[in-house]
Amino acid sequence: MSRLDSMIRRLEAQRATLNAAAERIRGRAGVVLEFGLGNGRTYDHLREILSGRDIYVFDRQVAAHPDCVPPDDRLYLGDLFETLPQAVADLGGRGALAHLDIGTGDKLESVALSQRAAPMVAELLAIGGVVVSDQPLDGFTAFAPLPLPEGVKAGRIFLYERV
Amino acid sequence: MSRLDSMIRRLEAQRATLNAAAERIRGRAGVVLEFGLGNGRTYDHLREILSGRDIYVFDRQVAAHPDCVPPDDRLYLGDLFETLPQAVADLGGRGALAHLDIGTGDKLESVALSQRAAPMVAELLAIGGVVVSDQPLDGFTAFAPLPLPEGVKAGRIFLYERV
Repeated sequence: MSRLDSMIRRLEAQRATLNAAAERIRGRAGVVLEFGLGNGRTYDHLREILSGRDIYVFDRQVAAHPDCVPPDDRLYLGDLFETLPQAVADLGGRGALAHLDIGTGDKLESVALSQRAAPMVAELLAIGGVVVSDQPLDGFTAFAPLPLPEGVKAGRIFLYERV
Repeated sequence: MSRLDSMIRRLEAQRATLNAAAERIRGRAGVVLEFGLGNGRTYDHLREILSGRDIYVFDRQVAAHPDCVPPDDRLYLGDLFETLPQAVADLGGRGALAHLDIGTGDKLESVALSQRAAPMVAELLAIGGVVVSDQPLDGFTAFAPLPLPEGVKAGRIFLYERV
């Protein structure tokens, strides 16, 4: 499988899982949390499939397409472990959906980042909220694995319910 | 259509068209020319579907994944309009397939780049060679449009035969 094949599969898994997560929270109140803005591709998708929801975005800096830059008052800019405590104070328990896309390219570092962020992500979410993550969050009792959408291979992306 | 949807469609169109181009040159001698290495995703795909062919790569600098860096003696590094004449001297008429992925994000600039490169790309290719391009090369008598693979929408990518 080439890197082109693998990128297509990754993006398709991401889209299918975000769509499934959006479906799960239909009719349930709560804000959306996007960890890792990057070029704004999935932010753009989230605001399309979750139109009308407030989407709060976390990243070190804004490097997105100009038409995918969130409003200033929904941006948590800077080191995640400095912004997360502030976000918990502002929004704790109000999250319906969180998308963690904080992989750095270095597998061990990405896993460590997600593991360290997970307890605060749990605090942000309401019970019954869902998490789509590019890294596994197994081992946290706050997160129960949910089945992935059809066609998405296990391990390519992860879906959890906040319990 | 979100930017995530649009990226998936663009990559799928790229893969389907590269695969169709590789199929067209099966059994025909000639080297492969990749214009724009980027992160090496399509280079990796080309070396998978055209295994055994020499692939020559053009870019300003190498910014690819370490496992997608071409051998030094197949790299034309620097400004395209300085390296193209050298490549024509080295490889003129020996190209079986060229992939132009030189879009800069600025539409007008990308079209201008492709139009300026097209005559030299034509010199690099053997008659019957094929070109996959992210920009249209209409108006060049050296290039006759070929039908796109099924499922690929016109205008998303372009396929030509060197005539």
